[in-house]
Formats: sequence, C-alpha cells, structure tokens
Amino acid sequence: MFQNKYSYFTGLIEDFLQKLPWKANDVLSESMAYTLMAGGKRVRPVLALAAAEIVGGAPEVVIPCACGLEMIHTYSLIHDDLPALDNDDYRRGRPTNHKVFGEATALLAGDGLLTYGFQLLASDVPVPLERQIKVIRETAEAVGWQGMVRGQVLDTLGEKGELSVSQITNIHHLKTGALLTASVRLGAILGGGLEEEIRQLSIYAAALGLAFQIKDDILDIEGTEDALGKPVGSDLKLQKSTYPSILGMDGAKIQLKQKIIEAKTALEKFEEKAEFLLCFADYIETRNH
Amino acid sequence: MFQNKYSYFTGLIEDFLQKLPWKANDVLSESMAYTLMAGGKRVRPVLALAAAEIVGGAPEVVIPCACGLEMIHTYSLIHDDLPALDNDDYRRGRPTNHKVFGEATALLAGDGLLTYGFQLLASDVPVPLERQIKVIRETAEAVGWQGMVRGQVLDTLGEKGELSVSQITNIHHLKTGALLTASVRLGAILGGGLEEEIRQLSIYAAALGLAFQIKDDILDIEGTEDALGKPVGSDLKLQKSTYPSILGMDGAKIQLKQKIIEAKTALEKFEEKAEFLLCFADYIETRNH
Repeated sequence: MFQNKYSYFTGLIEDFLQKLPWKANDVLSESMAYTLMAGGKRVRPVLALAAAEIVGGAPEVVIPCACGLEMIHTYSLIHDDLPALDNDDYRRGRPTNHKVFGEATALLAGDGLLTYGFQLLASDVPVPLERQIKVIRETAEAVGWQGMVRGQVLDTLGEKGELSVSQITNIHHLKTGALLTASVRLGAILGGGLEEEIRQLSIYAAALGLAFQIKDDILDIEGTEDALGKPVGSDLKLQKSTYPSILGMDGAKIQLKQKIIEAKTALEKFEEKAEFLLCFADYIETRNH
Repeated sequence: MFQNKYSYFTGLIEDFLQKLPWKANDVLSESMAYTLMAGGKRVRPVLALAAAEIVGGAPEVVIPCACGLEMIHTYSLIHDDLPALDNDDYRRGRPTNHKVFGEATALLAGDGLLTYGFQLLASDVPVPLERQIKVIRETAEAVGWQGMVRGQVLDTLGEKGELSVSQITNIHHLKTGALLTASVRLGAILGGGLEEEIRQLSIYAAALGLAFQIKDDILDIEGTEDALGKPVGSDLKLQKSTYPSILGMDGAKIQLKQKIIEAKTALEKFEEKAEFLLCFADYIETRNH
C-alpha cells in the first residue's frame, strides 16, 4: 500500500519532469537533467503531494509546484558538490555534475535549476493565488540566506573541530529541515489545509528532517557504498562532527527513534488519513540509502 | 529633471535595501551586501519604477519587487566573476566578491541573492495577485536556463574565435536584454499597463538592452579605468568578439545610435509621459561608466 502510493506519486513526478522542454544536444540542458534525472528518491515532491492529500486537496494539482521543490533540491546538491564547497566526486553512484560537465557548466546548471524551481512554483495551476504567493514566499525564505543557504555556510565554513549537539541540530534544521518543512507546507497550503493542520504537518516535517539527517550520518558509518552510491566514511575522513561522533552510535540511534516518534505523534489528529506519512517516517528510519 | 527623478527612484531603492534585516558580523550577510551595496546604478529597479509610472501605476508600490530584480542582477555578477566563469578580479572599483570572501562564500552569497530576489518578488504588496504571479513566472523564465543563464553559458562556453553579429546579438539579448525587459515588464504589469503598453515597453527594453551592451563593448576600448572601476581592454585580451571588433568602432557606434532610436520610437504613444524613459535611453548612450 505504502509502496504503491509512493510509486504512484513518483510516477506523476517523473512524468512531469520528463515532459519539460529539455533541449537535446545542449550542454546546459544535459547538465541540468544529468543530476535532476539521476534517480533520486523524490522525497520533497512526494511529501508535498502527500501533504496536499492529507488535508483533502488533489495531489495532482500541486505537481508542477512540487517538482519545483525537486529542482531547488537538485541545485543545492550540484552547488554543494562543487570543489569550492564539499568537493565531492560521486553522488547517487555516478560522478558528480562538475566531474562530467566541468565547474562552469555545473555552476550554471545549478543556477538554472534554482531559477526553474521558482518558475515552476509560479506555474499556472488551479489554486487560489493567495495560497500560491504565500508558498513562493515561504519556500524562498526556507531555502535562502536565512535557511538552506545559511545551513550550507555553517556546514562548510563553520567552526572546525567538535560541535555541540545543538550546533549540529541547527545546521541540520537549516540544511535539510527547512526544505522538507517547506515541501510539506507547500502541499498543505496549496491543498487548502487549515492553520492547525499546517502547523502539525510542519512539526512532522521538522522532526522528519532531523531524522533524515541523523540516518544519513548513521549510513555514512554503517551503510554500504553499493547501496548509497557514494563512498562511506566521508564524515570521519573530514573529521566532521555528526550525531554518532558525539553521541556514539547507540545514542544517535536513540535520537533517530525519538525524532521518528515525534514526527508520528504530530499526525495523531489526522487519524487513518495519516497512514502514508506514518509509513514515510518508518521508511526514513529504515532506509539503507 | 531626469537627474532628480533618477535620484528620487534610487533613493527609494537604497532605502529599501538598507532596511533589510542584514545580520551584523555574519560572513554571508556581509558577502551579499558587499556586492549588492557597492554603488551600482540600479538600472533594473529604476526601469521597473519608471515603467510602473508611465502606465499610471504608483512606483512606490513596486519597490520590493523591483529590488528583487537588483538582487537577481547582483547574483549574476557574483557568479559570473567566479574563477570557474569569467575569473574577474575587479568590479565597480573594488575587488570582486570571491577575492574578498573566498570562492565558497561568494558562490553561496550568489545563491542567497538569487533566492532573496524571488522572495522579494513574492512580497506582500498591494497589487492584484494574478499580476504578481505572472511577473514571478516571467522573471524566472527571463533569467533562467532559457534566458540569462543560457546567455552566460553561450558567452563563457560558446565557440571561441570570431562570432557573427547575429551570434553576439543573441548572447547580448540573453545576458542583458532578458533581465532589462523583465524589469520594464515587471513595472508595467504590476502598474496595471494595457497589453499594448506592455508590448511597446518591451520593445523599448530589448533595444535598450542591446544598446547597453554595445556601449559596454565601446567603453571597454574607449573608457577609462578610473570611470569604469575595472580594467579596460579585457575583451581584447580575451580575444572576445564584440560589436567594435566585428563592425569597427564607427560601425558599433552607428549600431548603438540605431538601437537608441529604436528604443525611443517604441515610446511614441506615451507622448510627454515618456520623458524619463527617453532621457534614460540618452543616458545609456552617453554614460562613461
């Protein structure tokens, strides 16, 4: 049931992305599509579609906007991988964008995807415009200089050496939580959710974002290169502070569990309608890539 | 009269930008503000305000959105200057962003400004929302992978060696014309302009954009480093095809003149209301920086 719906949602998303007017034999299009179509899990647009549905909206209506979120996410991956930032060579089992297309094209492909993301957020979709404008404003704030970009600044340029749990939590909230929360809010707002519903879904998303990141840290130690599509142990190599490095592996797993419970608890009032998002939380906890 | 109004407009713009919640002692804020507040001519937001006025709108209402255009412009400067692209050391008489803050911060400051630009485009302003959504969508398209970003790709990665006039014109239309046209359209659409008015203003802006770029090429040869705030002769050094290099200096000046005439002619129906934008065209033609 969960897997069926996940496949239904990702089917809608892939279909929309594939039908965009990509230009053949064009280095910019190819570079953008290379990372965008590299088989990501589509976590952000799926969350948006599910959030629209849980508040009684039609998931299909929010597809263009939800795909805008995936573009924004993909831009952040391409830029983060650049030599000036994380200098990563592999992503999802393939060489990173700049390794294939060069730094100049990768940089511009990221710029193109970020901009395309906002173009899609402003798509001509049948929703009340005051909701759509609110979503654009909120998403920009979430991924901008006080949100996701700040998270990347803190992560790349922040103090080296050991960080406190609250410092790491702050970075994770900004780097991952902000866009996940924006994704859920996008679906819930466009879908016509009530204030209280949007608030509960935001709590769910923030907890899920943190769980997602803790799980990432755990997988970097316990995962396999085959499943992850990138080398493991990179945090250790970079002497990066992570949940496991500070709390120990057991402590990190307890934190992960707690965040999953927190996320699920926030959905109580949705009763049986919450099934997909509850399973989604389990999926985040148990995923191996 | 022209100068007074220009100062009035830039006064509104500077005031708005300075009051944004920049964080003190924060490297990301400082890096973003370093280039944003470096005394640019504010051509894009000024055009937006003037276009709002010429169609009978209140320029003051569009200030937040117009300042979004300046952020988007500034992001493009910071990214274009990066070593992976143009590798420029000076801009407006000062070291470029990455020379001061390093590549990582400059890259992220650009990302932050682009995102902030869209946040401002989606500001809570008293205009009909269908106009605002249209403006966001159009602006994203103009500066994205089929517009300004593509112009940068063609300019940086395009064929080396001699380009034809039509190839250069295409690059200029994308790199400069697209955002200038979007700026004028933003003001005219938000200000409530009629279809025909918006169309004429778009013709004005496209011609002005080309004139702007031809003038840039001319100044790179005839200008002074003092006035420009950057070294002259860089096109020659890079063996870049420009209007003067292909048409000769006289030919380039004739083209410039023609474009200015084309721009002005598009404003005929606005009669005396066109005064500011007519003077603006003269200013583009005669500026020395």
